[in-house]
Amino acid sequence: MYIKKQRLLTPGPTPLLPSALHAMMGSDIHHRTEDFRNLYKRVLANLKDILGTSNDVLVLVASGTGALEAAAQNFFSPGDEVLVCSAGKFGERWVEIARAWGLNATVLSAPYGDAVQPETVEQALAGNRNIKGVFAQASETSTGAQHDVKAMGHAVKKTDAIFVVDAITGIGTMPLEIEAWGLDVVIGGSQKAFMIPPGLAFLSISQKAWGSGEDSKSPRFYFDLKRERKNAATGESAWTPNTALLLAFDEALKYIQSLGPHKLVANAQLLAKATREAVTELGLELFSSAPGSSVTSVRAPRGMDSGVIVKEFRSRFNAIISNGQGSMKGQIFRLAHLGYFDFHDLFAIVAELEIILNANGHAVRFGSGVAAVQNAYADAALAKEAALTAG
Amino acid sequence: MYIKKQRLLTPGPTPLLPSALHAMMGSDIHHRTEDFRNLYKRVLANLKDILGTSNDVLVLVASGTGALEAAAQNFFSPGDEVLVCSAGKFGERWVEIARAWGLNATVLSAPYGDAVQPETVEQALAGNRNIKGVFAQASETSTGAQHDVKAMGHAVKKTDAIFVVDAITGIGTMPLEIEAWGLDVVIGGSQKAFMIPPGLAFLSISQKAWGSGEDSKSPRFYFDLKRERKNAATGESAWTPNTALLLAFDEALKYIQSLGPHKLVANAQLLAKATREAVTELGLELFSSAPGSSVTSVRAPRGMDSGVIVKEFRSRFNAIISNGQGSMKGQIFRLAHLGYFDFHDLFAIVAELEIILNANGHAVRFGSGVAAVQNAYADAALAKEAALTAG
Repeated sequence: MYIKKQRLLTPGPTPLLPSALHAMMGSDIHHRTEDFRNLYKRVLANLKDILGTSNDVLVLVASGTGALEAAAQNFFSPGDEVLVCSAGKFGERWVEIARAWGLNATVLSAPYGDAVQPETVEQALAGNRNIKGVFAQASETSTGAQHDVKAMGHAVKKTDAIFVVDAITGIGTMPLEIEAWGLDVVIGGSQKAFMIPPGLAFLSISQKAWGSGEDSKSPRFYFDLKRERKNAATGESAWTPNTALLLAFDEALKYIQSLGPHKLVANAQLLAKATREAVTELGLELFSSAPGSSVTSVRAPRGMDSGVIVKEFRSRFNAIISNGQGSMKGQIFRLAHLGYFDFHDLFAIVAELEIILNANGHAVRFGSGVAAVQNAYADAALAKEAALTAG
Repeated sequence: MYIKKQRLLTPGPTPLLPSALHAMMGSDIHHRTEDFRNLYKRVLANLKDILGTSNDVLVLVASGTGALEAAAQNFFSPGDEVLVCSAGKFGERWVEIARAWGLNATVLSAPYGDAVQPETVEQALAGNRNIKGVFAQASETSTGAQHDVKAMGHAVKKTDAIFVVDAITGIGTMPLEIEAWGLDVVIGGSQKAFMIPPGLAFLSISQKAWGSGEDSKSPRFYFDLKRERKNAATGESAWTPNTALLLAFDEALKYIQSLGPHKLVANAQLLAKATREAVTELGLELFSSAPGSSVTSVRAPRGMDSGVIVKEFRSRFNAIISNGQGSMKGQIFRLAHLGYFDFHDLFAIVAELEIILNANGHAVRFGSGVAAVQNAYADAALAKEAALTAG
């Protein structure tokens, strides 16, 4: 307990891929050169491949919020009527952004931890033919809840509205069939399942979305997506790109391709399942009624502030996990699975959680939660072996 | 189980300190400059401080074996009579080196896993007044056994012989009072408790050792320690230094000083204790009769090749641990504690060991070994708290 390695275990920024981190050391390149254009084209092509779409894919030098704003700015005009699904802190951010850009937002809300039902979206669309867009989180990072964007997409598809999906923690943690499900704008960020530091955001954009943006009257300059599209076609970015992060992104995309993008999702799903089983075994309650695989929100035991758990992870083990956000601060803590996480991480996290719970009056048997993770691992290993034999 | 981060968990090379790794990026410096001289002087001074000695301390561009050879070369002459304590693969290396340099070596051997007793050394010294040197490992890395170099040193001190200690895995894992115990030459390497990659070796050298080397007739050039001493006094190395590793070493030494050198030792001792308790709980047998804290050697269960355990750590979890060496290959596996290891590592390692044992016919209850580690942690945390309250 004298040496405590710092470990970043939050749902963003997430643990870094070493080869990506090392690639940043090659940043002494210039961005108006053929070398850079090759890099940029490769990153865009590989990202498109991993997202599984033939829609346009653009990268911005911004955090995810910048890309959320770019969507509101480029595809709508002040006064447009939009529906905003809100089931947590990031749903609330959609509301704020929509209002900042003068959009006439109808909020479809669900309590923290729950998800807005697709039927609610469908009914709202049916009740108002003027709706130009629907905003939702694929995965609500503040609670770990997952929206059924497939069903929502099918509802939006039948209308003239476009479906704008914040998939910042959805990509890499849940299946997302961008074209089949009608996800017109899908937004991601570098510091999530992509295993690199914050600083890059990206969007996939359907023809329907570009069409919707044709007559947009919102002012824009830095986030002018048409301008980015025009430049991207030549392997350049409109403004100075973040070369260090693009070098890292290039490595991370290669790693994800070597792993297989669906395995990135399967990895998060398996760790999420093991985590749910472990915390249940430890007598804790899951917070979300619609738990996804980006992050698992867990209620602190009765009478214990979840901040104590977060603080003791840091003070005892130098491990950084997340507290609840917004109104859930102090009530829940969040264990992340998205991106570069593995079972080794989870064995240790659960062992540490057991120690912290015990030290704070929630008695658990040492090793019992870890055993639940070990069983989840063993079951999955057997299933994988059986699949290999069958194949 | 789709993402498996590679984790280096061997007794050397050991896990790297991130700040040291990052410092290597500053290698675009020249070694005949004032900047370098300041770096080199600081490294030597801090290393001396951490070793707790006022003896000369020299750094070589070599792996540890180079420094072992330098000792044989610089402080003895062909034909000199020496005693070599040998209780494993590295003891055998001392014998090979002594013979390569024409020393007349009497081998005091103990079986793998055991330690040579200080009385054996004392008796051999008493029986031959011509002995010029005694060679021993502080910690025999191949078995995890620890020699009582304090008692050995006291015996050697009374004679004209010098005591040459391979402390490559001893430094940072056991107390070593260089001057008080009469450890005339103490040898260490960068890739052990010092948390940086292989490539640097170092020696502390007493006045008695320098005296013994005065009339040495062995040829030497690269490993001419007097030449190194003369250069080191001016902040330079005799030959081109490994600047990348010196930058890393500088960071690692600062980290160890901020931690406190005795806490580096306490950390390894605590992890070693927790490991012994965990493997015993899992029904496994410790290999060494004199277990130290650099590495714990564990016998594979009856009928199981220890290579299977090592291979499955890699194939299932991408974790690199060590097999037995020499005659112990296939019979034991080794779990390391020296340098940048913490409880988080150990929780996961033991959870993984449980899975591997279970999958290979040695049934254990999942979580039972982890619980032993958790109990060791909790006991130490309570003791630390009590000490803080008392202090």
